[in-house]
Amino acid sequence: MRTDSLARQLAFLAEIDRLKGVLRQTTLIDQSRRENSAEHSWHLALAALVLAEHAPQGADVGRVVRMVLVHDLVEIDAGDAFAYDAAANVGKDERERLAAERLFGLLPPDQGAELRALWEEFERADTPDAAFAVALDRLQPLLVNHHGGGGSWTRHGITRAQVLARMAPIERALPSLWAEVLRMVDENCRKGHIRP
Amino acid sequence: MRTDSLARQLAFLAEIDRLKGVLRQTTLIDQSRRENSAEHSWHLALAALVLAEHAPQGADVGRVVRMVLVHDLVEIDAGDAFAYDAAANVGKDERERLAAERLFGLLPPDQGAELRALWEEFERADTPDAAFAVALDRLQPLLVNHHGGGGSWTRHGITRAQVLARMAPIERALPSLWAEVLRMVDENCRKGHIRP
Repeated sequence: MRTDSLARQLAFLAEIDRLKGVLRQTTLIDQSRRENSAEHSWHLALAALVLAEHAPQGADVGRVVRMVLVHDLVEIDAGDAFAYDAAANVGKDERERLAAERLFGLLPPDQGAELRALWEEFERADTPDAAFAVALDRLQPLLVNHHGGGGSWTRHGITRAQVLARMAPIERALPSLWAEVLRMVDENCRKGHIRP
Repeated sequence: MRTDSLARQLAFLAEIDRLKGVLRQTTLIDQSRRENSAEHSWHLALAALVLAEHAPQGADVGRVVRMVLVHDLVEIDAGDAFAYDAAANVGKDERERLAAERLFGLLPPDQGAELRALWEEFERADTPDAAFAVALDRLQPLLVNHHGGGGSWTRHGITRAQVLARMAPIERALPSLWAEVLRMVDENCRKGHIRP
């Protein structure tokens, strides 16, 4: 039993290596290449630790770290759908559900259920922990685009209204960051990185 | 004060994006490219969560996750020294100390001190948390090389004795995994991926 459990854990850890090959629309700040979902998840986990003092009341930062570490795993099967591409998001829920079934199913049942529940909570975004995690998932590409010359905003001709709609979870979950978010967005509008 | 603190936190989060550009000798399992230290750190954090039941007595898994998330940050300035390359490891301690000074110094002082202490504990490897973290840092490239056709072992002509010496922290901190480690090493010897 113990042996079977260990074998499943190691098989899961080998399988999730593939998240390093899932490319996002965001680039690195140095714009040398597109970012992948594994390093993006690492960046979110550090953002959760560093910005913990701004978290919504009742948020458990350790749990948020676990949540962001697994929040994109389903992309191994379902791919990353660019947030501003409506067509790419059609059928996404069903693709991700099947992916969750397969990937979390590699683990011993209790562990798989626990990590899957964290992913589902992230998707529902209806708890303080998930609200914090979703806000970080919006903030990280904003930071990267801001320091990376406009990045995916510029490349895809995204407008200020689109960016602000996308960033709304930050205003709700991390209100103490909102003035700084607006400052970054406005600076990128002035520079022509975000369309008016 | 709050604003200055937030500015420092965001500056730190932007700076550590560079860890995604620090390449290790290990490749991805699909051997498409070398692994970087940010995605490697993400992989360790998930390994800590998934293998928690095997952790040394007294280990605090949440703390170990934080430790592995920051354990390679100094490589942003100091680079990644290949474990089996003695020459590359000369002067490494001093380079990493200076890197820690600069990078953790970007944060508000209390946060910087807390994360730096986690990194120092990892380097000393003298607590149950650090012993677990170091063992995971040895296990992850083993898994990747095992599933990736020998990877950096084969490319650099590494011997069985070198691999076993490198894996010794796993035997000490995760004894319930040791039989499986030996099985993987022996399989790679038989296949010619590790030299006798």
